[in-house]
Amino acid sequence: MNRKTFITTASLLSVSAVAAPTSLMQKSKLQHQVYFWLKNPQSTADRDKLIAGIRTLRGIETVRELHIGVPASTEKREVVDNSFSVSELMIFDDVEGQNIYQEHPIHKKFVEECSSLWTKVIVYDSAMV
Amino acid sequence: MNRKTFITTASLLSVSAVAAPTSLMQKSKLQHQVYFWLKNPQSTADRDKLIAGIRTLRGIETVRELHIGVPASTEKREVVDNSFSVSELMIFDDVEGQNIYQEHPIHKKFVEECSSLWTKVIVYDSAMV
Repeated sequence: MNRKTFITTASLLSVSAVAAPTSLMQKSKLQHQVYFWLKNPQSTADRDKLIAGIRTLRGIETVRELHIGVPASTEKREVVDNSFSVSELMIFDDVEGQNIYQEHPIHKKFVEECSSLWTKVIVYDSAMV
Repeated sequence: MNRKTFITTASLLSVSAVAAPTSLMQKSKLQHQVYFWLKNPQSTADRDKLIAGIRTLRGIETVRELHIGVPASTEKREVVDNSFSVSELMIFDDVEGQNIYQEHPIHKKFVEECSSLWTKVIVYDSAMV
């Protein structure tokens, strides 16, 4: 993420963030967070291949933001799960934006080329309030 | 530079080295993602109290962004965990920013006043690449 993208991200997100809990029924931005566990967690080649694959998903028009991460060196408290290999955060305008993404040829190609790299995936989809 | 500063710097550098093949010399932003499961998941009063508590965390100076969510009505695929009650996404400049947050009186007050509401918490900390 470059500086310009980050600033755009920050301003877009702060707009949604000020919305009240009473707006739960309104159209919310969708935060799609995915955690990947690699079959070979020690392989930086596999990790980098997965990261490169995730980057291609930027080409899908409904993906408004895409941020990729790896476990941070924060304190190992009991509630912290740092066992994942790669994290992916996407922002969509709405649920329909994610439906289009799921069926998009670029996403299908990513799954076809990269799914052999991972052994587990957890997805959390949040409507921003 | 004192010893503590040196250790912090060293760990930050190693995060960037692992995290960012294309930006080895940059300091990575920290994405702190928390999922809460309420003791009374049907209680909108408890959910709104938790959301109000999370909003107070904006007052901590190292919290650069704060975004709150609830489960979205996306397709219930096998990999999707939609059992949580509330999600919280924070961005810090670095690991040290989160250390300051963890020890901050506003955070301690939040835990004291809201921790009776939840039964489970999972935290994922990512260094952005």
